[in-house]
Amino acid sequence: MFKRVALVARHSKPQVVASLISLADFLTTHGLTVLVDRDSVSHADAGRYPLVDRADLGKLADLAIVLGGDGTMLSVARLLAPYNTPMVGVNQGRLGFMTDISLHEMFTTIEAILHGEFVPEDRILLNASVQRDGVEVASTLAFNDVVFSRGATGSMIEFEIFIDKQFVYSQRSDGLIVSTPTGSTAYSLAAGGPILHPTIPAITLVPICPQSLSNRPIAVNDSSLVEFVLTRGVDSRVHFDGQSHCGLQEMDRVLIRRYRNPLRILHPVGYNYYDMLRHKLHWGERLL
Amino acid sequence: MFKRVALVARHSKPQVVASLISLADFLTTHGLTVLVDRDSVSHADAGRYPLVDRADLGKLADLAIVLGGDGTMLSVARLLAPYNTPMVGVNQGRLGFMTDISLHEMFTTIEAILHGEFVPEDRILLNASVQRDGVEVASTLAFNDVVFSRGATGSMIEFEIFIDKQFVYSQRSDGLIVSTPTGSTAYSLAAGGPILHPTIPAITLVPICPQSLSNRPIAVNDSSLVEFVLTRGVDSRVHFDGQSHCGLQEMDRVLIRRYRNPLRILHPVGYNYYDMLRHKLHWGERLL
Amino acid sequence: MFKRVALVARHSKPQVVASLISLADFLTTHGLTVLVDRDSVSHADAGRYPLVDRADLGKLADLAIVLGGDGTMLSVARLLAPYNTPMVGVNQGRLGFMTDISLHEMFTTIEAILHGEFVPEDRILLNASVQRDGVEVASTLAFNDVVFSRGATGSMIEFEIFIDKQFVYSQRSDGLIVSTPTGSTAYSLAAGGPILHPTIPAITLVPICPQSLSNRPIAVNDSSLVEFVLTRGVDSRVHFDGQSHCGLQEMDRVLIRRYRNPLRILHPVGYNYYDMLRHKLHWGERLL
Amino acid sequence: MFKRVALVARHSKPQVVASLISLADFLTTHGLTVLVDRDSVSHADAGRYPLVDRADLGKLADLAIVLGGDGTMLSVARLLAPYNTPMVGVNQGRLGFMTDISLHEMFTTIEAILHGEFVPEDRILLNASVQRDGVEVASTLAFNDVVFSRGATGSMIEFEIFIDKQFVYSQRSDGLIVSTPTGSTAYSLAAGGPILHPTIPAITLVPICPQSLSNRPIAVNDSSLVEFVLTRGVDSRVHFDGQSHCGLQEMDRVLIRRYRNPLRILHPVGYNYYDMLRHKLHWGERLL
Repeated sequence: MFKRVALVARHSKPQVVASLISLADFLTTHGLTVLVDRDSVSHADAGRYPLVDRADLGKLADLAIVLGGDGTMLSVARLLAPYNTPMVGVNQGRLGFMTDISLHEMFTTIEAILHGEFVPEDRILLNASVQRDGVEVASTLAFNDVVFSRGATGSMIEFEIFIDKQFVYSQRSDGLIVSTPTGSTAYSLAAGGPILHPTIPAITLVPICPQSLSNRPIAVNDSSLVEFVLTRGVDSRVHFDGQSHCGLQEMDRVLIRRYRNPLRILHPVGYNYYDMLRHKLHWGERLL
Repeated sequence: MFKRVALVARHSKPQVVASLISLADFLTTHGLTVLVDRDSVSHADAGRYPLVDRADLGKLADLAIVLGGDGTMLSVARLLAPYNTPMVGVNQGRLGFMTDISLHEMFTTIEAILHGEFVPEDRILLNASVQRDGVEVASTLAFNDVVFSRGATGSMIEFEIFIDKQFVYSQRSDGLIVSTPTGSTAYSLAAGGPILHPTIPAITLVPICPQSLSNRPIAVNDSSLVEFVLTRGVDSRVHFDGQSHCGLQEMDRVLIRRYRNPLRILHPVGYNYYDMLRHKLHWGERLL
Repeated sequence: MFKRVALVARHSKPQVVASLISLADFLTTHGLTVLVDRDSVSHADAGRYPLVDRADLGKLADLAIVLGGDGTMLSVARLLAPYNTPMVGVNQGRLGFMTDISLHEMFTTIEAILHGEFVPEDRILLNASVQRDGVEVASTLAFNDVVFSRGATGSMIEFEIFIDKQFVYSQRSDGLIVSTPTGSTAYSLAAGGPILHPTIPAITLVPICPQSLSNRPIAVNDSSLVEFVLTRGVDSRVHFDGQSHCGLQEMDRVLIRRYRNPLRILHPVGYNYYDMLRHKLHWGERLL
Repeated sequence: MFKRVALVARHSKPQVVASLISLADFLTTHGLTVLVDRDSVSHADAGRYPLVDRADLGKLADLAIVLGGDGTMLSVARLLAPYNTPMVGVNQGRLGFMTDISLHEMFTTIEAILHGEFVPEDRILLNASVQRDGVEVASTLAFNDVVFSRGATGSMIEFEIFIDKQFVYSQRSDGLIVSTPTGSTAYSLAAGGPILHPTIPAITLVPICPQSLSNRPIAVNDSSLVEFVLTRGVDSRVHFDGQSHCGLQEMDRVLIRRYRNPLRILHPVGYNYYDMLRHKLHWGERLL
């Protein structure tokens, strides 16, 4: 089933490196080829395992295992999606929205996954293109969100939104979050956005502190083309997954579409999205 | 294309009756058979047009035209859906979320629709079944929402929610709104829910004044089975589109699914969902 | 300092009764006269201690000690305020917003309070008068809130609000919460209202699911006269602290003023309002 | 009553300059001495009227009249408060939250005010002191708000809040708005804060997109010392009325107190705070 497995870890903390190497050994004894992300461990720590640029993992491996938190998952997801390489997340002590395998059950769960026992879940990504005077000046993927925001000046920005070339609204606010269902439990939630189950084919637009009190979150079909035009805003920026950004000038247009490939996450058997939400958000447990 | 057209009006106000009759005459001269809803006009006003029970309109007609507001659309929608009869809405002066044809353009727009010039839009309904001790005690459709609420006593209710038999949360609140995308601009919006474009296959669960501040709106796939179990609540009720209701007892279960048929609304050519939202919600107009 | 102490308990649970009696014995050995609330314990359990109607406690005692939760505090507060009798709250295991003395430290803390070691805190109450055709049909006090709400029918109500005889707004909603700072952490918080420190001389008006999205919570000076006029609403009600209510008819007016006397709560030395909030609301602890 | 009147205008737009000069002439004919803000008009336009630095207006005049919007009022308010000089606001066409005299009634209303016919309203300001390693590095006044915010990087900041030296909470968010009642209808409202009547002696703390969903707006007594400590945040800033700012470093402390002097605004007779709110926020008008 899987032959070449890429391993990625969040930090070069000694215990995480130790986990990664013991997992590499485990996979090797199971007859798999292991590739290690160059940013995750030092050459010395990697030992006999080949170090590979993170950007090449998707091309070279047919499964990626991430030891880390949701942030590491985000950064790897954008690199795997173009190659349809699935991803597994192992958390480092604290349950994440996406890293649902705990460290102490890592070996048994990974072994089960290698035997085909898993719950696959496809999640959309966004493809954002920044256009200036009709020319694309930046293009990137986002797994959580594309966030338009004011800069450090403290002034609100003004912009117009079009969906499928239809004008939707102009808005004066601190910014706008364009989110996938995956991102709906991240920054979008803090800004008052709804939670969307990953199977819903939707993109949400969540205003950040809009001046008009009727500017509420709206979800549109993920087949839609979302278009943002900055009409006023010094020092405005667009952020991708909170991990990279691009400065915006007035009249810049940013086009956002669902990316052609989804990212597949493999969950352990018994995975339950709602259990995860309930634990993370401290929702009420069974009464009866 | 259409041969038998049912006409429904909101009230028996003289000017609305006059509009309905002149529309009936107009349709008759175009060779169509006209049926008139018995609740909409008196026998005398109907004249030569046959009066039909509202519940039979869907079976007998292949198009229904509603002269009224969103409330009238709601009540008719539930009766048409079982027969796949499409619906057209003509507002009586004020733009509605669904009645997008204005009275003064009624004849030209209806004529265009009869010639096949329209934008069809399929919208889901919910099918709710109230079960007590394992027996179904009520079953009904809802086009906007199924709303669980405390009664007049002023005490919060407690309940548990399951999605596809998976436990989601228990909650203490004034109630819960289970809404279609159509209902997302109605009561759900007042309770802090998101707006969902009608093409999104989702059902939203929006808590009403939940005691726990982390109980936020969530949208689930409309293929899901949503299950509500009342664990505590004297005088609690479940409401359907705000037009009918059923008293609930502790341990009653209410099962909610997407109804097998969607309701088709025919919009005039040039219809734009976002224009309608912007006007109704006073969102910002073009800046440039 | 204090000579006659009234004791009130939430329930007649054996362990609560035992706590109450042992506290009564403790107070007696300290030379105080003890009165016991008739609703709190049976005649047999009370033994040698005189049972007194709850409504008479304020008149007869110069201190009331409540063993219970916030609900018991609420019901007693309304009865003590007319007599300026201060109140102390002992919780039964779970920290309350007002019952800040835990059972295991009850004796030491009460002893300190008897020696004058306490932090007094004065809190306002509301006085509501329901008027029909110019005649007062009901009048009551509220320590948390006066809540106007729709009945069980599921239809929104419509009303007008005046402050100091100046028209403020008309509103269509599920209802309105008129709250003291004490009530700001209760139902008002669930409806989206702000938290107000008890020392702020303010009354908050918090709409419940208002149809207009710009109807936001507003705080007015507690010297204001708040006036509610029901313009439309079958089966509408006004609730006082969620413990009693009065049916409303269209055109009924409800006048709400700060009650002439505040209620004094005695907290143990070291009491910190913000610690209590942080624990109850799970706010973030110290980072450094 | 008033002898020396300072005039300030928002822009050097020809029609505003014309209004200012005609008002200057009007005041002169009424025997008053007129001073003109140096930033408001050119030397040529000022003609015979002396130009004065804006910072000196409060010291030299005993009344300031502002022709402009709320932004101009803000900037002038901070300069007048130290001298207890009252302020009058004349709007330039669109009703402001503070500029409640319309241009066409300017002469009659100003004349009435000069005769002592006005409604005075005292409003608090905040005094913020930025401290680094125990040394004050900046100090300023704010009439609306002191806003802590993340910079352009897109990462949330972390901070701790103390009230009167008592720890309140730590928070991870986009920032925090510390607002006067005047500021409660400005940025604070967009961030979900409550509206506070100007007579309420309170300061509100409104989180901006807090990660923890239980971090809700809280109002504290305006006699309180509010203390902000930045524990984590690259490129974080503190803004004063959105008109000036100061960069923050980790472990910087910002102390915020009510300023010793209020600012007095003179309103025309008949002024009604709630009318103004209702018009600005499109609240419902009278139903009866």
